[in-house]
Amino acid sequence: RVNGARLMKTLHSTCEFGKAHPWGVHETETGMARLALNDDDKRVRHWLIEQAEALGCKVTVDQMGNMFVVRPGKDNTIPPVMMGSHLDTQPTGGRYDGILGVIAGLEALRTLHDHDYQTEGPVGLVNWTNEEGARFPMVTVSSAVWAGEISLETAWNCKEVTPAAGQEPQTLKQELQRIGFLGEVPASYTAQPMAAHFEIHIEQGPILEDGGLKVGVVTGAQAYNWYEIEVKGRDSHAGTTPLSARRDALLAAAKMIVESNKAAKEFSGLVTTGIIRAEPGSVNTMAHTVRFTLDARHPSDEQLAKMVSRCREVFENVAKEDSERGVEVKWTTLTENVAVQFDKGCIAAIEESADEVCAQFEEAASGQKLWTHLTSGAGHDSCNASKRCPSAMIFAVTREGMSHTPDEYCSPEDCITSADVLLGAVVRYDKA
Amino acid sequence: RVNGARLMKTLHSTCEFGKAHPWGVHETETGMARLALNDDDKRVRHWLIEQAEALGCKVTVDQMGNMFVVRPGKDNTIPPVMMGSHLDTQPTGGRYDGILGVIAGLEALRTLHDHDYQTEGPVGLVNWTNEEGARFPMVTVSSAVWAGEISLETAWNCKEVTPAAGQEPQTLKQELQRIGFLGEVPASYTAQPMAAHFEIHIEQGPILEDGGLKVGVVTGAQAYNWYEIEVKGRDSHAGTTPLSARRDALLAAAKMIVESNKAAKEFSGLVTTGIIRAEPGSVNTMAHTVRFTLDARHPSDEQLAKMVSRCREVFENVAKEDSERGVEVKWTTLTENVAVQFDKGCIAAIEESADEVCAQFEEAASGQKLWTHLTSGAGHDSCNASKRCPSAMIFAVTREGMSHTPDEYCSPEDCITSADVLLGAVVRYDKA
Ligand SMILES: NC(=O)NCCC(=O)O
Ligand SMILES: NC(=O)NCCC(=O)O
Repeated sequence: RVNGARLMKTLHSTCEFGKAHPWGVHETETGMARLALNDDDKRVRHWLIEQAEALGCKVTVDQMGNMFVVRPGKDNTIPPVMMGSHLDTQPTGGRYDGILGVIAGLEALRTLHDHDYQTEGPVGLVNWTNEEGARFPMVTVSSAVWAGEISLETAWNCKEVTPAAGQEPQTLKQELQRIGFLGEVPASYTAQPMAAHFEIHIEQGPILEDGGLKVGVVTGAQAYNWYEIEVKGRDSHAGTTPLSARRDALLAAAKMIVESNKAAKEFSGLVTTGIIRAEPGSVNTMAHTVRFTLDARHPSDEQLAKMVSRCREVFENVAKEDSERGVEVKWTTLTENVAVQFDKGCIAAIEESADEVCAQFEEAASGQKLWTHLTSGAGHDSCNASKRCPSAMIFAVTREGMSHTPDEYCSPEDCITSADVLLGAVVRYDKA
Repeated sequence: RVNGARLMKTLHSTCEFGKAHPWGVHETETGMARLALNDDDKRVRHWLIEQAEALGCKVTVDQMGNMFVVRPGKDNTIPPVMMGSHLDTQPTGGRYDGILGVIAGLEALRTLHDHDYQTEGPVGLVNWTNEEGARFPMVTVSSAVWAGEISLETAWNCKEVTPAAGQEPQTLKQELQRIGFLGEVPASYTAQPMAAHFEIHIEQGPILEDGGLKVGVVTGAQAYNWYEIEVKGRDSHAGTTPLSARRDALLAAAKMIVESNKAAKEFSGLVTTGIIRAEPGSVNTMAHTVRFTLDARHPSDEQLAKMVSRCREVFENVAKEDSERGVEVKWTTLTENVAVQFDKGCIAAIEESADEVCAQFEEAASGQKLWTHLTSGAGHDSCNASKRCPSAMIFAVTREGMSHTPDEYCSPEDCITSADVLLGAVVRYDKA
């Protein structure tokens, strides 16, 4: 079992790097704004190196700034069993999304260290860069490069969404360089092979909490695509341009967003617009250009494709038939992620561990089973990892299913339970 | 008659201060981005002082940075007959909106000077600060302070909409100070009384061009109000939050914008959203807060009020009934402008002048009358001026009715014709 008090203390102390958006009175009742590769991300990365080295682990930083912490085992010719997640957050993020996975992995390594436990092969921890896609709008980009799903160049050239005041948008590579985390080792499953990849993550949904459950054993993740839509119209005067003479890009974009929500309902999927920008941005001038994002998700690849096609169709219709003198609409794909099935062997290791860890609680709950299988609504680095090594995930309870918001919360008990399940799964998988 | 070549040369040479957005091959085929009180506005203001002083005029700058240029007449105990408009532009503005009115006024003063023409009373020119409301979102704010319609403090504290990169939003007063145009004279009709206010402006609509006409005699302006709408929801994860559990501020705002357009159609008015901002701005996080503007116009004060009430009603409905778990909506009024009727005496002076100036063209057009009465779709400083002195306006032909866009255009012939009408009207009014 892990040292639960140490786990929670460590988690909250690292949240000093980038804490933001207080929502309660207690000093840990804040959210986070540790956007990938900002100064706080740099600080927490240096902290992680120190902690890893104190445990006698080796730290390797690859060309995407991914950090691989490896604790040697008996046989170090075989690749390590890794625990991984991310330390970057949303701009209005919480203290658990990603962070719990990394800190629980570190706690597992510390626990092995405390007990001088010798694993068969090496065991380690990975911190994946820019998982959120919040600063650089390519989600789980660095595990994708590792898995060979996208090219290093494409990832390096990705520009930040919201440049700092007074600056040109920086590329991911520029920011890796600036904070000193542009490693030399190729970001690749051949250069840094893994025997397996286990990840704790908060569920970010309501199922565990609603069912009174302790842990989710994640068997896969739904498909999701991101797009940027550009709508071009004509800037003209709000007081002198009759409605019928308009090419109002913002009105057209608003109609498209409303239509995309209808498409989501029709296909029982999800479509979300999180970013919108209108130019030139003046009260009495129509926008000539509007850009907005679409985040589209579905458990089925096929249904996702159909839902997106429906959006393309209705957007074209708004552009041509329902925006007076017409607007133009252009789609750019930001990321496409097929649905993922996790590895049976990894899932089995987690199930066994969950059985053991939950046993005590289940006894108290008159035998009710306290873990369940889940499919992830969100994308995770494990989805990319699973393309190149056996992978699976553990979900921790999330209060009211709320995530990507400052008051995202996972109780200390639930954090510790998930960490115990992780440790058990890794030790089992290593033995096997 | 004015010196037409000089008028056009002067107009285009002053557009060197702040030119932007080229749209054709010729060097004058660009738009403007001379936002109120920026460095280019400062430059053109210094230029205007030089030109005015070269004509022996007195220049007074008031507490709003309004510039009053006065040419003495025979009796200088009476207030001056003023010609006025504005030198600030939209961010993607053209070379005529406002600029033509000021430069034509200067040309009228130069013509009087060339002919050593002695007016009965003083005659002058006013450059009103931040007419557009594009930088500081209070339209015709400085003539409003002059007219006592809003307080100096309110105007001074108005913050710019789009701060420069790396800066806090500046207030109008801070920027007046920065560019050295915070005058000491009170901005008030009592401190700077005017005998009358005449203004040339481009029509910004299609009526003159479509009718093959030369000049519009403007008898009034429609009512218009500006609002900022704040929609508050809940930031949460785009992949794990079921549609039914959402409080998506951006989707709700999009529905409101679509509804506001329906309200405009229902009441035969105009409603436009030119600015929208969503926070926190991340592809996979719903917006917790969206702010957007509404520009609502109607020739009838009563119908405008009804149209805005309809918007309030439908927005409330979207917030409560049609956004899943609901959002909150808050309105802030930015400006309210009732419909205006201009002064009969000023209108008559313009009519007589238009009759005379158009006579030559009308002969060629086999007697077709080439000027018409118009109501302004846009707001103008003349609307505020009209509350404290007799006022009226002259409209110049606008290509395709396009304005607030870089390729806004008024031909040299049409610019000159309007300037001739202005000069004739001022001389007539002064005599009377
Ligand atoms: N887990 C998580 O929030 N990852 C970001 C990727 C996504 O949007 O699903
Ligand atoms: N004429 C003009 O564009 N003025 C700005 C005020 C308005 O939006 O009507």
